[in-house]
Amino acid sequence: MDDDVRGQEQQQEQKGGMVETDRRTLLRTAGLAGAAGAAFAGAMHGKFSLAPVTAAQAQTATSMPKGVDKAWWPSKWGKDDEAGASNHITPAKVLDAAKWIKDGKIYKIGRVYEQGMPLFGARAFSLRIPGGPTGGPFGDNKLVYHDEFLATEIGQTGTQFDGLGHIGIQMGKDGDKSEMRFYNGFTSQEISDAYGLKKLGTEKLKPLFTRAHLIDMVGLKGGMMDAGQEITSADIKAALQKQNIAESDVKPGDAIMFHTGWGSLWMKNNDRYNSGEPGIGLDAAKWVIEKDLALTAADTWAVEVVPNPDKSLAFAVHSELQTKHGILNHENLIFDELIADRKYQFVYCFTPAPIKGATGSNGCPIAIT
Amino acid sequence: MDDDVRGQEQQQEQKGGMVETDRRTLLRTAGLAGAAGAAFAGAMHGKFSLAPVTAAQAQTATSMPKGVDKAWWPSKWGKDDEAGASNHITPAKVLDAAKWIKDGKIYKIGRVYEQGMPLFGARAFSLRIPGGPTGGPFGDNKLVYHDEFLATEIGQTGTQFDGLGHIGIQMGKDGDKSEMRFYNGFTSQEISDAYGLKKLGTEKLKPLFTRAHLIDMVGLKGGMMDAGQEITSADIKAALQKQNIAESDVKPGDAIMFHTGWGSLWMKNNDRYNSGEPGIGLDAAKWVIEKDLALTAADTWAVEVVPNPDKSLAFAVHSELQTKHGILNHENLIFDELIADRKYQFVYCFTPAPIKGATGSNGCPIAIT
Amino acid sequence: MDDDVRGQEQQQEQKGGMVETDRRTLLRTAGLAGAAGAAFAGAMHGKFSLAPVTAAQAQTATSMPKGVDKAWWPSKWGKDDEAGASNHITPAKVLDAAKWIKDGKIYKIGRVYEQGMPLFGARAFSLRIPGGPTGGPFGDNKLVYHDEFLATEIGQTGTQFDGLGHIGIQMGKDGDKSEMRFYNGFTSQEISDAYGLKKLGTEKLKPLFTRAHLIDMVGLKGGMMDAGQEITSADIKAALQKQNIAESDVKPGDAIMFHTGWGSLWMKNNDRYNSGEPGIGLDAAKWVIEKDLALTAADTWAVEVVPNPDKSLAFAVHSELQTKHGILNHENLIFDELIADRKYQFVYCFTPAPIKGATGSNGCPIAIT
Amino acid sequence: MDDDVRGQEQQQEQKGGMVETDRRTLLRTAGLAGAAGAAFAGAMHGKFSLAPVTAAQAQTATSMPKGVDKAWWPSKWGKDDEAGASNHITPAKVLDAAKWIKDGKIYKIGRVYEQGMPLFGARAFSLRIPGGPTGGPFGDNKLVYHDEFLATEIGQTGTQFDGLGHIGIQMGKDGDKSEMRFYNGFTSQEISDAYGLKKLGTEKLKPLFTRAHLIDMVGLKGGMMDAGQEITSADIKAALQKQNIAESDVKPGDAIMFHTGWGSLWMKNNDRYNSGEPGIGLDAAKWVIEKDLALTAADTWAVEVVPNPDKSLAFAVHSELQTKHGILNHENLIFDELIADRKYQFVYCFTPAPIKGATGSNGCPIAIT
Repeated sequence: MDDDVRGQEQQQEQKGGMVETDRRTLLRTAGLAGAAGAAFAGAMHGKFSLAPVTAAQAQTATSMPKGVDKAWWPSKWGKDDEAGASNHITPAKVLDAAKWIKDGKIYKIGRVYEQGMPLFGARAFSLRIPGGPTGGPFGDNKLVYHDEFLATEIGQTGTQFDGLGHIGIQMGKDGDKSEMRFYNGFTSQEISDAYGLKKLGTEKLKPLFTRAHLIDMVGLKGGMMDAGQEITSADIKAALQKQNIAESDVKPGDAIMFHTGWGSLWMKNNDRYNSGEPGIGLDAAKWVIEKDLALTAADTWAVEVVPNPDKSLAFAVHSELQTKHGILNHENLIFDELIADRKYQFVYCFTPAPIKGATGSNGCPIAIT
Repeated sequence: MDDDVRGQEQQQEQKGGMVETDRRTLLRTAGLAGAAGAAFAGAMHGKFSLAPVTAAQAQTATSMPKGVDKAWWPSKWGKDDEAGASNHITPAKVLDAAKWIKDGKIYKIGRVYEQGMPLFGARAFSLRIPGGPTGGPFGDNKLVYHDEFLATEIGQTGTQFDGLGHIGIQMGKDGDKSEMRFYNGFTSQEISDAYGLKKLGTEKLKPLFTRAHLIDMVGLKGGMMDAGQEITSADIKAALQKQNIAESDVKPGDAIMFHTGWGSLWMKNNDRYNSGEPGIGLDAAKWVIEKDLALTAADTWAVEVVPNPDKSLAFAVHSELQTKHGILNHENLIFDELIADRKYQFVYCFTPAPIKGATGSNGCPIAIT
Repeated sequence: MDDDVRGQEQQQEQKGGMVETDRRTLLRTAGLAGAAGAAFAGAMHGKFSLAPVTAAQAQTATSMPKGVDKAWWPSKWGKDDEAGASNHITPAKVLDAAKWIKDGKIYKIGRVYEQGMPLFGARAFSLRIPGGPTGGPFGDNKLVYHDEFLATEIGQTGTQFDGLGHIGIQMGKDGDKSEMRFYNGFTSQEISDAYGLKKLGTEKLKPLFTRAHLIDMVGLKGGMMDAGQEITSADIKAALQKQNIAESDVKPGDAIMFHTGWGSLWMKNNDRYNSGEPGIGLDAAKWVIEKDLALTAADTWAVEVVPNPDKSLAFAVHSELQTKHGILNHENLIFDELIADRKYQFVYCFTPAPIKGATGSNGCPIAIT
Repeated sequence: MDDDVRGQEQQQEQKGGMVETDRRTLLRTAGLAGAAGAAFAGAMHGKFSLAPVTAAQAQTATSMPKGVDKAWWPSKWGKDDEAGASNHITPAKVLDAAKWIKDGKIYKIGRVYEQGMPLFGARAFSLRIPGGPTGGPFGDNKLVYHDEFLATEIGQTGTQFDGLGHIGIQMGKDGDKSEMRFYNGFTSQEISDAYGLKKLGTEKLKPLFTRAHLIDMVGLKGGMMDAGQEITSADIKAALQKQNIAESDVKPGDAIMFHTGWGSLWMKNNDRYNSGEPGIGLDAAKWVIEKDLALTAADTWAVEVVPNPDKSLAFAVHSELQTKHGILNHENLIFDELIADRKYQFVYCFTPAPIKGATGSNGCPIAIT
């Protein structure tokens, strides 16, 4: 790696005073060097700072992005649909899911939002309590109160739910917003706006209340999976069998969740946590699509394997599931209590915060048994 | 009103370029003038800018705040408890509530968060999409993505859930943080911190999944209620009867919600919306406490009547329910669809976003029938 | 104007609870209606919400933007230059300017930044004091301290200095970032980045310490100028003569400033202040360019006339001076004391806050006599 | 150090994902352990996270803070004064300073504000460019534009100017805001407000344009000074002599600046940079007060020595100069070019951004020779 690249890396590492991601190691792993690495170093931000990129990125404007062989729109829910797989959640689905409420036990499967949690690239999470207290005393009853002021990538920090305006694919020439396509074919030119997406905001999604199946990969593999280790459809089938769940019990509109053990690094070793992750690849994504599921989730920051075994791909599962199929995604969950209680099937209940034009949502998903 | 006060009012109206609250009218209504009004004008911020305050505010340091005759701590859930009435949500309670899931229908009862919604005082809601897109294209698959950056009083704008660190009472001398008391007697000195409350943050609350009873005051009164109009326990009983709900069916740990019609002003007439509101007073609060409920909610910004008929009180129901009894509160809800469907009883499901040290929570509560 | 447009306008007026800009009046003035008005209504944000736009906006992608007949790059300061007209400030220039320090008097010509100041569109200004105090007491010396947390469009609210990354021209097809050109021909594709402009940030500018000439248009016209009233080069010459300044005394690298009286509306009538403004048009811009000046400034929010007498143009002076010629611009200044003291020539001293990748700068410019 | 303290430290280190300050080392250096250290660990935030604190902190409420033997108010500029030592900048002072403009050369002595710069504790600096571009194209001239959105402790990150509302002393009982005293005796109860200080905001300060003397401690000591190394009045005198400046040439209202070399760690080794610093102690502060100077400044984050050789003191020079004497302070400056040019005397020119109620100011101070 030349000095210029190293210089940029050093700057990156310090960006926002963030915990350093061991990008050097990752880039080495990904076999990136020279010109490609340099171009990459300058463009890194956010979650995608880890995207493995090759020299092929400089491809001609006319070639199709890898993995795209035809238009993925209109959506099966209609050309104007903005709710994607949340459309699965019909009254029938809710009633079917509610049958799983047997214990009356509710598990919080979202993490606490706090300073010190791993954040990617330049994302920030800054909470301040204005005043001490914020106001008062007022009235003869001497009321005082506190507010809180938060500045953050609200839908993309901590436990984060990916909406349908988050991930797209640049179809035409780089920088041509009229050919950056999102779910249902909406273009960046149509939807992006400095003050909130004009379409596909989280406020368009329906409440999620569905059957969820938790795949215990730690149980299957005998320990925490490692970064870059892919969960395949065969793994899913093996885990289901081990957990005594018939594959046929995974029905359209259900959610599939993965316990990889990676979450044990949370706030313990943020550098490693951010450096990559185990997760599903395109093979498992195909299974998810065939099963017609509503949502994927995991105890990792991207649900999918990073880096992808195909070094030319950057978060290809995201675009496969979310952009092309409108399937939702929930990241940075925590399943420890469910695993301890050997609860692999439950009601997943989460309603994205209806922030107009937001790309994702904060909040606390719950599992009900 | 003298010129000095008027000058301060004018400034206040412009604060943050906010929609003007018709404070002048309110203050006149409240019979405030001269010195008391002037003192008040300088201190107004946030929701409490509407607090009716009298000259009695300048009471001596040693007198007890109105409405406080004894210490309200320790809490019935123990001296260290930080979860308050969310402790009601036990497995038994969840199973009992789940019986009400009959239609499989889910209603969003939270509003969309957006610029233009009514905000109080100097609170702000600023959403920005960094970049267009935020990042990419990355990889041969040419992935692009959007994030969103939000700067706001996250728990105190739009549909807002009041946590237990929000409201307290100044017991001793004004400004003595060691005598500003919150739920379970915690003091501001103990809990307040510039970067998030040290105790009573929303992350300490349990998920709420309980039976909710919706009181249709519009149906009872024949139209939208007006600002300053109090909902009494007699009103509640009358409405329950009209809606064919036995009062005895309102059980400990349930939620009570009020449809006043005031929400019809939302983003239609923000000035009037903010100028006051109909809601429960201390009499209804007493009923709520006796019924041992978990939560109050309404289609208004404070749930309680503003201004209070007793002009010396500022948001006295907040401190009565939240501070003294740990009963939670959800504001700016919307019940139009439930009312249209004549659904007065349902499962209220909401888990506060576990933002460490936050005073409240954003998010979308749902009603399940 | 049809209902759909009106609906959008109403929403816009409420955006961020901002003080309403009387856009309806402006749009009527501008003769905008039907399709063009509707398209415009959806796209409005920020300062440019007032941009008069015609149906011609839907022109074909291949036509050149109005006013552009040839590439304006490379800059006369070299193809890599990012400092523009701040390059005028050489030691010789500083020494020449310093000769004007005769009284030793310093005038603040920037306004106080505060909530309630006029902001455009959805821009925000939110200041919070974390904690009360933010920290302490610490040590046996019992130190306490306050910080402040500010969330704002730092370079584009209040007294604002426009850097060279602020204004560009879409040359090719709408949405093609590789043909959005800024000063010195840099494209949006090259410079824009979600976390700060990669080029032309304010940190690239040199400190400004130069001779400034204040044009008292109120004195010339006998009163406050009105919105849409254009200051021409003839006006400038007439004012200079009236103020006993030889036109030849306006030298390359100097600053020209305009007192229009419009600033008297600041926080007095924000609606009118934002509804348009008097200012220079393309004729005066030509004079500024011929004079080879470093900076324009005024007691208005855009320095240039709004709406432009040519209704097809949107802030054409901005792109003429800033984008094409690298001439800097300072908005929302206040000249009342200088005018009262009849001080029309002084040293203008301002160094943009070197915020990496920022489009403009906050801060307090001063006039030294 | 016990486990509990270590646990808290670990959490602190991760706060905001900030670059870790080597507090452990510092605390060891400071000889802090057991109860005092534990109390301290829980309270640390901001710049003052490094404050050396002893068990004496738990002193009784009635004892006077160390270093305070009498009230320091009213100020010599009058009991209502809020401008402090900026009052020194009279026309005579400006004319006197202007005599030093001989070369016409301007040096930027402020640093670039950027992600990756060292920040203390939980302070944040988050810049976002809304949209790409933020707006447009508008008009037939096809104007596009960028804004920037910044969320930060605006006056307390990067090159930072301390205003008079920043530092105070808790006089009475801990948490009693009516006895937290600031410059001129103003109390926290009087001045603090969730939305901006009610008094002593930076908007009250006068523009600074004065003679500055740069003390080259690196030249005097033969290399970069170390953390905890104190600059004494004897050092100042020795450096002045070495630099051929008569001590008598340091006049009332002048500024004194210190080049310690510590700035060479900026963004090179943020951990060490934040871990402490060389700087002036109480002895030099006494000299500054006797000389009746307007401002101190340095290439460090606090100007004063950290940790203080007297381990019981936390930032005692701050309260001595700022709180008691209204002397201003400018931190994180850069003098490399001045040193290279051997320019030790120059005009220091800086006007704090007049942000209403702010505790400090961002911006770029300049040195003019």
